[in-house]
Amino acid sequence: MTAQDKDPAAAARGAKLASDFTQSLHYDRRLYSEDIAGSIAHARMLGKQGIIDSDEAAKIIEGLQQIEQEISAGTFAWKPDLEDIHMNIESRLHEIIGETAGRLHTARSRNDQVATDTRLWVKKAAQDAANALRQVQEALLQQAQRHTESVLPGYTHLQRGQPVVFAHHLLAYFEMFDRDAGRFLAAKRAADVMPLGSGAMAGSPYPLDRESVAEELGFAAISANSMDAVSDRDFILYYLFAASVTMAHLSRLAEEFIIWSSDEFGFIRLSDEYTSGSSIMPQKRNPDFAELIRGKTGRVYGHLMALLTTVKGLPLTYNRDLQEDKEGLFDAADTVLPALSAAAGMISGMTINADRMRLAADRSYILATDIADYLVGKGVPFRQAYIAVSALAKQSIATGIGFGELTMEHFRSASSLFDDDVMQVTLDSAVAARDVPGGTAPGRVKEALQQAMKRLDAANSEM
Amino acid sequence: MTAQDKDPAAAARGAKLASDFTQSLHYDRRLYSEDIAGSIAHARMLGKQGIIDSDEAAKIIEGLQQIEQEISAGTFAWKPDLEDIHMNIESRLHEIIGETAGRLHTARSRNDQVATDTRLWVKKAAQDAANALRQVQEALLQQAQRHTESVLPGYTHLQRGQPVVFAHHLLAYFEMFDRDAGRFLAAKRAADVMPLGSGAMAGSPYPLDRESVAEELGFAAISANSMDAVSDRDFILYYLFAASVTMAHLSRLAEEFIIWSSDEFGFIRLSDEYTSGSSIMPQKRNPDFAELIRGKTGRVYGHLMALLTTVKGLPLTYNRDLQEDKEGLFDAADTVLPALSAAAGMISGMTINADRMRLAADRSYILATDIADYLVGKGVPFRQAYIAVSALAKQSIATGIGFGELTMEHFRSASSLFDDDVMQVTLDSAVAARDVPGGTAPGRVKEALQQAMKRLDAANSEM
Amino acid sequence: MTAQDKDPAAAARGAKLASDFTQSLHYDRRLYSEDIAGSIAHARMLGKQGIIDSDEAAKIIEGLQQIEQEISAGTFAWKPDLEDIHMNIESRLHEIIGETAGRLHTARSRNDQVATDTRLWVKKAAQDAANALRQVQEALLQQAQRHTESVLPGYTHLQRGQPVVFAHHLLAYFEMFDRDAGRFLAAKRAADVMPLGSGAMAGSPYPLDRESVAEELGFAAISANSMDAVSDRDFILYYLFAASVTMAHLSRLAEEFIIWSSDEFGFIRLSDEYTSGSSIMPQKRNPDFAELIRGKTGRVYGHLMALLTTVKGLPLTYNRDLQEDKEGLFDAADTVLPALSAAAGMISGMTINADRMRLAADRSYILATDIADYLVGKGVPFRQAYIAVSALAKQSIATGIGFGELTMEHFRSASSLFDDDVMQVTLDSAVAARDVPGGTAPGRVKEALQQAMKRLDAANSEM
Amino acid sequence: MTAQDKDPAAAARGAKLASDFTQSLHYDRRLYSEDIAGSIAHARMLGKQGIIDSDEAAKIIEGLQQIEQEISAGTFAWKPDLEDIHMNIESRLHEIIGETAGRLHTARSRNDQVATDTRLWVKKAAQDAANALRQVQEALLQQAQRHTESVLPGYTHLQRGQPVVFAHHLLAYFEMFDRDAGRFLAAKRAADVMPLGSGAMAGSPYPLDRESVAEELGFAAISANSMDAVSDRDFILYYLFAASVTMAHLSRLAEEFIIWSSDEFGFIRLSDEYTSGSSIMPQKRNPDFAELIRGKTGRVYGHLMALLTTVKGLPLTYNRDLQEDKEGLFDAADTVLPALSAAAGMISGMTINADRMRLAADRSYILATDIADYLVGKGVPFRQAYIAVSALAKQSIATGIGFGELTMEHFRSASSLFDDDVMQVTLDSAVAARDVPGGTAPGRVKEALQQAMKRLDAANSEM
Repeated sequence: MTAQDKDPAAAARGAKLASDFTQSLHYDRRLYSEDIAGSIAHARMLGKQGIIDSDEAAKIIEGLQQIEQEISAGTFAWKPDLEDIHMNIESRLHEIIGETAGRLHTARSRNDQVATDTRLWVKKAAQDAANALRQVQEALLQQAQRHTESVLPGYTHLQRGQPVVFAHHLLAYFEMFDRDAGRFLAAKRAADVMPLGSGAMAGSPYPLDRESVAEELGFAAISANSMDAVSDRDFILYYLFAASVTMAHLSRLAEEFIIWSSDEFGFIRLSDEYTSGSSIMPQKRNPDFAELIRGKTGRVYGHLMALLTTVKGLPLTYNRDLQEDKEGLFDAADTVLPALSAAAGMISGMTINADRMRLAADRSYILATDIADYLVGKGVPFRQAYIAVSALAKQSIATGIGFGELTMEHFRSASSLFDDDVMQVTLDSAVAARDVPGGTAPGRVKEALQQAMKRLDAANSEM
Repeated sequence: MTAQDKDPAAAARGAKLASDFTQSLHYDRRLYSEDIAGSIAHARMLGKQGIIDSDEAAKIIEGLQQIEQEISAGTFAWKPDLEDIHMNIESRLHEIIGETAGRLHTARSRNDQVATDTRLWVKKAAQDAANALRQVQEALLQQAQRHTESVLPGYTHLQRGQPVVFAHHLLAYFEMFDRDAGRFLAAKRAADVMPLGSGAMAGSPYPLDRESVAEELGFAAISANSMDAVSDRDFILYYLFAASVTMAHLSRLAEEFIIWSSDEFGFIRLSDEYTSGSSIMPQKRNPDFAELIRGKTGRVYGHLMALLTTVKGLPLTYNRDLQEDKEGLFDAADTVLPALSAAAGMISGMTINADRMRLAADRSYILATDIADYLVGKGVPFRQAYIAVSALAKQSIATGIGFGELTMEHFRSASSLFDDDVMQVTLDSAVAARDVPGGTAPGRVKEALQQAMKRLDAANSEM
Repeated sequence: MTAQDKDPAAAARGAKLASDFTQSLHYDRRLYSEDIAGSIAHARMLGKQGIIDSDEAAKIIEGLQQIEQEISAGTFAWKPDLEDIHMNIESRLHEIIGETAGRLHTARSRNDQVATDTRLWVKKAAQDAANALRQVQEALLQQAQRHTESVLPGYTHLQRGQPVVFAHHLLAYFEMFDRDAGRFLAAKRAADVMPLGSGAMAGSPYPLDRESVAEELGFAAISANSMDAVSDRDFILYYLFAASVTMAHLSRLAEEFIIWSSDEFGFIRLSDEYTSGSSIMPQKRNPDFAELIRGKTGRVYGHLMALLTTVKGLPLTYNRDLQEDKEGLFDAADTVLPALSAAAGMISGMTINADRMRLAADRSYILATDIADYLVGKGVPFRQAYIAVSALAKQSIATGIGFGELTMEHFRSASSLFDDDVMQVTLDSAVAARDVPGGTAPGRVKEALQQAMKRLDAANSEM
Repeated sequence: MTAQDKDPAAAARGAKLASDFTQSLHYDRRLYSEDIAGSIAHARMLGKQGIIDSDEAAKIIEGLQQIEQEISAGTFAWKPDLEDIHMNIESRLHEIIGETAGRLHTARSRNDQVATDTRLWVKKAAQDAANALRQVQEALLQQAQRHTESVLPGYTHLQRGQPVVFAHHLLAYFEMFDRDAGRFLAAKRAADVMPLGSGAMAGSPYPLDRESVAEELGFAAISANSMDAVSDRDFILYYLFAASVTMAHLSRLAEEFIIWSSDEFGFIRLSDEYTSGSSIMPQKRNPDFAELIRGKTGRVYGHLMALLTTVKGLPLTYNRDLQEDKEGLFDAADTVLPALSAAAGMISGMTINADRMRLAADRSYILATDIADYLVGKGVPFRQAYIAVSALAKQSIATGIGFGELTMEHFRSASSLFDDDVMQVTLDSAVAARDVPGGTAPGRVKEALQQAMKRLDAANSEM
C-alpha cells in the first residue's frame, strides 16, 4: 500500500497542485496592454502585406481594442482555466469576432509573441525606474542646497574621520543614483529589439514586414537571429542587475538614516509618514521604511540570482524554464519603484539637526591632521609636528575635550610649537581647505551642486 | 521646477506606492489559523494565571473561534487598510466582543506573536514537504520494482560508461530524496521552539506560564533567550535550504526526463498529463512540467539568497527588515510542494522503453573494461589484455558494431587471446558482476529495494 | 584575417589558459592526508580479501606512509604538470615501489576516491568549525558573567526599547552559535558515509569488504547506492549552509561591535589587536576585524550559491562540473574559522563601558511602559495611565530629561495620579520585572548562564 | 576551564588565523603595475604643482620604475608580513631612495589609491574579456561559414521543432557574445573615472591637478564627489555581472556541446585537446572542458552575489568590508578568460557530423507544419489540411518512417488531398521558406553572416 493509497485526498490535492504549476495568468495579466499592442501591430502588418485580408485585419484590430477597453475598465471576465493572458485574450477575441480571430495567429508563435510583450514591458519599467531615480536625485539636491555649509563628521569605519559639509555627503548619493539611472537606461536599450517574426524559433515562411511592426511598436531595431530572439533573456537580467545595484545604494542610504535616527547619533528626524512609534514613547521613532528598503534589498538580489540560475545550462532554443522570467521581474519592479518613492519622500521630509552634527565633529579629534598640516605649513618638520599633535591627542583623551573645543591654553601645554594662529584651524577652515574638484570645500560643493542640477535637467528633458 | 512638479500625478502615485510598501495582508493572511491558535493558547494561559479574568479569557477564545470559522468559511471581511493579518483579526475581535478584545494584548508583543505564528507555519510546511518527498520515494520504488533487470548505460559526462539496471538508477534518487526529507525534518525541529513570552525582546513583566502555552501549541520547547527569540530566523533559512537542495535534486531528475524524452534518446515517454504537444506533431512531446521544475529551481535558490542577504549585518533585536522573511518562504513552499507532486506523477506515469535503453547499451563500448577484466581473470597480464581490447575497440569504431553485438569472429580477429568463453561477457554478466553493497548487480538492487521499502515504511509510520 | 592572426601571442596565451583550466593541484593538495588514508585503507582491504597479494598491499602501504611523511615534512616534489593531488601521489608511489603501485587502482575509480577524500575532509572541517564555535560561546559566557547586572537599552529598529542586562544581550549570541554548532555537526553526519567501493558509478566487480574500509577510516556507514555515491555533494552544500548562517550571525555581532565602537555610542572599546588607528587620532579605533567579518559574509554566501548553481540540472552520474565543489568549500572553511577565532578574541578582549551603556538607558524614555504598568498595577484604568505617561513623555521631550532621570516633581507636574512609590520604577526594577524564563531579570539571566555553561561543558565533552 | 585552556595550541592557532585574516598580499600583488603607474603619475603631478620638490618627484619615479622592473623580473623580495602590495612597494621604495619615499604619501590616502589601482585593473580586464569574446565570435563565424546549408533540427524543449541550418544555430551565439562584449565595455566605461585626489574621503588640502593625473593614467574623467569616489564599487559589480551573463551563455553552449557529443545525438566530435577518454573505450570522449565551463558558471555567479552582499547596508564612506572586492573579481577574470579561450578552441576544433544532423531532421516529424502550409497554399481549408497531416503523423508513428523519408505512396494513403507537388516539401524547401530577416533561409543566413563579419571587423578595429 502506498502513502497515497492511505490518503485518497492526497492524490486529488496532488493533481490540483500540478495543474496550478503551469498557470501564469495571476502574474502575466499585467502584460495585457503590451500583448494587445503587439497583436494590433502584427494584424495591421498581416493585412498590409496581404497575408490576411485587410477586412480581417480591421476586424481583429477593432476586437482587440474593445478587449483593451474591457480590461482597463475592469469589465473583462478573466478565466483562470485558460492559464495565461494570451489564451484569455484570444478566447475573448473569438467571442467578439468569431472565426476570424484565428487569423491573428498567422505567422506568429507564442515564443516570439511573449518575448515581444516582455520587452515592451521592460522598456517601460526601466524608464519608470530611471524617472523615479531622477526624483530621488531631485530630493537630494533640494536638501543639499540647504546644507552647503552644515558641517558633520565624515566617517570611515563608522569612526569620525574628517569634517565634511552635509551637502557633500548627500551629493555622494546623487552620483550613485545617477549611475543607477544609466544602468536602467542601458537595460531599456537592451530590451529595445523586436523579436516578432522569429516564429517558434526559425523565422516565418510568410512575407512579413518586420520593420514596420517594429516602428509601430516603437522598437529601435529588429532581432538579427530568430533562434537567439526567442531564447534571449539578457535584457531581463540587465533590468534585475540595475535594480539590484539600486537597492544596494538605497540600502546604504537606509542604513545611514537608521543610524542617524538613533538617539545616540540624533542627526536627523524622519517625518511621521515614514516612521512608526508609540504615543507614550514619542521619542521612539522606528524608521520602518528605511528598514524595509534595507530588508527588501535581499529579494531583488534573490530575483537576479533566480533568473541567472534558470538560464544556466539551457540548450537552445525556447524551453519552458524561461516562463520563470516574469514573476521576479515584476516583483523587482514592484519593490524598487516604491523604495525609490519612499526614499525621495524620506529625503525631502527629514529634518536635519545641524547642531548635533556639528557637535559630533567638534567633540572629536578630526582636526588632528589639519593641525599637523598647519605646523608643517609653518615649516615644522613632519615628525615634530606629529609629536606635537600626539601630545594634544593625549590631552584630549585625558580631559574629554574634543579637538574642536581646544583653547590656546591646551595647545600651549601640549607643545611650544603652537602659536596663536593655530586657533584659525577650525572645522570650517578644515572643510574649506579641501578645495579640489570633488572635494568638500563649500565652494566646490556649491559648484558640484550647480553641475548636478544641470545634469539632472538634461536627464529630465530626455525622459 | 522639479520633476515632480511637472507631473502632479507622480506625487500621488508616489504616496500610494509608499503606503503599499508596508502592507503584508496579501501574504500574511495565510497565517490566520496559526495566529488564532497562538492567541487562543495565550488567552487561556492569561486566564489560568489570573493575569486577566477567566471570563475575559473565555470571551476572547470564543470570539477567536468565531473568527476562524468566518475565515475558513470565506465570510470574513478582509480590510487591506488594516495592513496585516493581526490587525484584521484584532479589529474583528473588537467588533465581536468589544473592549475585552484589548486584553488579549496583555503580556504579548507583535514581535513574539509573529515569530510564534511563523514557527507554527514552518513546522507544518516542513512536515508537508517531508510527506510529499515520501510520495516521490514511493513512486520511485514502484517504478524500480518493475525494472530490476532492465539494463541501460550508466552515464558519466553524459557518455555511456558502464551498464546498470534501471532500478539502480532510480534508487539513486530515492537516496537523494531521503536526505531531503531528513533536512526538512531538521528544519521542523529548528522551528519547534516557542518564542511567545519574549515580549518585544526583553521578556514579560507578567507571571506567564510559557510551558503550558508551548504544550497547548505542540511546541517541543520554549526559547531560552528573549532577545534571540524575536530576532531568530534560522528556522526559515533552514527550510529554504532544505527546499533548495530538494529543488537541486528535482532539477537533476527533470534534466534526465528531458534528455530521456528526446527523440535521440527515446528512453521514456512521459504521460500526456505532464507534456504538451500538437496533434500534427504527435511525436513532439514537450516535457513542460520537467522544464518548469528545472526552471523553478532558480526561484527557490533566490529566496534562500534573499533571506540570507536580509539578515546580514542586522543589529539586535527586531528590525522591520525581518518582515521580509515570509513571502519567499511561502513561495518556496508553493513551489516545492507542486514540484514534488508533479515529480511523483511523472515517475508513476512514465512509460519505460526498455528496448531502447538496452540497445543504447548494446551498441556501445561499455563492456570494454569487463572484457579486459575477463582476460586478466584468465591470467593474461593486464597490459596484454588492454592491447587486445584496444584492438577490439578499433574494430568497433571501424565497423560501427557495438561491443554488445560482437561475435566470436570479431573477437578472434582482434586477438588470439580471446577464447570462446569471452562470449559469456555480456551486458547481463557485467551488471551481475558489480556484486558489492550499493552495486548494480540485480541481487544487490533487489536487496536495496527491500531495504528502501522498509525505510520508507518506517518513515511513513512516523509521519 | 582573424583577431588571432593579428596577435600570434594570443593563440599561445589561449592554449596556456585552457591548460590551466583543468588543473586542481593548487587547491586539492590540501586533501593529501585524506587521500593517503583512504588509499592505505583500500590497499589493506584489497590484501585481506586476496584481491591483491598481501605483500603488494604491504609495499603500497609503506610507500604511501613515506609519501605522507615527505609531504608533511615539506620535502615532497610537487609537479603541477600532473594536474592534481592524486596523480602526484600515484606518480611518486611508482617512483618508490615501482610497478606494484599500479595495483592500488584495482577496484577503485577516481570518482569514488575523490568523494571519499572530500567527505573525510568535510568531517574534520565541520568538527573544527563546531569547536571554534564552542570557543566563541565560551568567550561570550566569560564576558557575560561580568555583566549580569550592567543595564543597557535593548534596541528594536536601532531605537532604544526596553532595558536589558548586557549578559542577556550576549547570551542571545550564545544561542545563535549553539544552533550553528548543531548545523555543522549535522553537516558532519551528512558527510559520514563512505562512497569507496562505488567504482566509477556502478559498483565494483571485485569482492570488496566495504565495511572494513569504512571502519578503518572512521565512517559511520557505507553508501547504499553507487550512482548516488559518486554524484552526491549534499554534504558540502550542508557545510556551506552551516557556514553561511554562522557568518550571518557573526555579521550581526560585528555590526553591533562597529556601532558600539562609534564615538556616538561608545559602549565598548575593542582591544588594539582587532583595531587599527593612527597615533595622532588615538580615539579613532577602526574596527577592522569586525568589518572584515561582516564583509566576508558575502563570500561564504557566494560559495553556497555557486555550488547550488553548479549542481542544478546535472544528469547522473559524475560530471566534471563536480570538480568545482572544493575551492569554495576550502575558502569557506578558511573564512569561517579565522572569523570565529577573531570573534572570540574580540569578545574576550573588549572593554565594556558600563557607564555609557547605563547612561544611554537613563537618558531615554524606555521606562514609559513600566511606569504605565505601575499605574495599572495600582488600579488606574489603562487609558488614564496611558494619558499620564504621555504627559510625562511630552515633558521629557521639552526638557531633555530622560525617563531615568525624572524626579518626583516631574511626575507630579505631569499627573496627579503619580504617588511617591513611582520613584521605585527604575531601570533596575524594570529589568528585574522581566522575570520569566528567557527574560532579562538578573536572576533569570544568571540561571540562563548556569544552564549555558552546562550545555557548553556537555558539548565540549562530546568533541 | 575553557575549551582553549584544554588545548594550548588552539590559542596560538587562533592568533595565527586572525593575523591571516587581514592580509591581502597573496592576491593584491597582481595590482603592482597599476599601483606603480598610479604612484608615478601622482608623484609627477606633486612635483609639477610644487607640492614636493621636482627632484624628490624624479627620485620617487625612478625608484618606482626600478621596483616595477624587479617585480616583473621576479627578483622582488615579497614580504608577507607587510600585509599588502602597497606596503611592500613603499617599504622597498624606502630602501632604495630613503626618507624621500615618505613624500609620495603627500595628498594621497590608501582609500583613493586602492580605488584607482582597481579601476585601472578593471579597465584592462574588461577590455581583455571583450577581446576574448571577439575571438569566440570569430571562431563561430568561421565554423558557420562552412555550414550555411547543413540542416539539423532546431529544438524547443529539447524536442525537434523545425529544420534550421547549422550556421543559423551558431549565429545565435554570435549575438549573445556580441551583447556580452557590449556589457564588458560598459563595465570598462564605468571604471574609467579616476578617484585619485579624493583623499581618505573628503578631498585633499593640497593644490592638486587631478586632470593631469587622469590624463597620464588614461582615465576619461575624474570623480565628481570624494565620498562617493572612495566607496563606489559599482564598476566591479558591473564587471561581475558582465562575466555572469557571459558564463550563462557559455554554459548554454557547453550544454549543447555535451548533448551533441553524446552517443545518442552524435552531432559533433570535440577535438582531443578538449576531451578525455580511455584507449580501451576510444568512443568515450568526455567533454571535460565543456563540463568545467558549465560548472564554473556557479563560481562567477557566486562572486557577483558575494559582492552584492558585501556592499549591502554599508554606511558611507570607506569601510574595511570593501577590501573584499578584489578576490572575487580576480577569480571571475581567471575563470571567464580561460573559459572563452576554451570555447573558441572547441568551436574551431570540433568536427561536425552533418549526416547525423540531417538524419535527425529527416527521421522526424518536423515537416508537419510545412506540409500543412503547402495544402493551405493550394487552397485547402486549414481544418482539412490539418486532418490530412494528422493522418500522415499517425502513419509515421505506426511505421517509424520520418516525415523526411515519406514517399508519394505514404502521402496518398494518408489523404487524397496530396498531389505530386507535395514531394517538393523537403527539409531544404522548409528551411528556404523561412525567408525573413533573422530567419533560417540560407540566403538570409549568408546575409547575416556577412553582416556579422562586418560588425566583428568594426569591433576589432576599435579594440
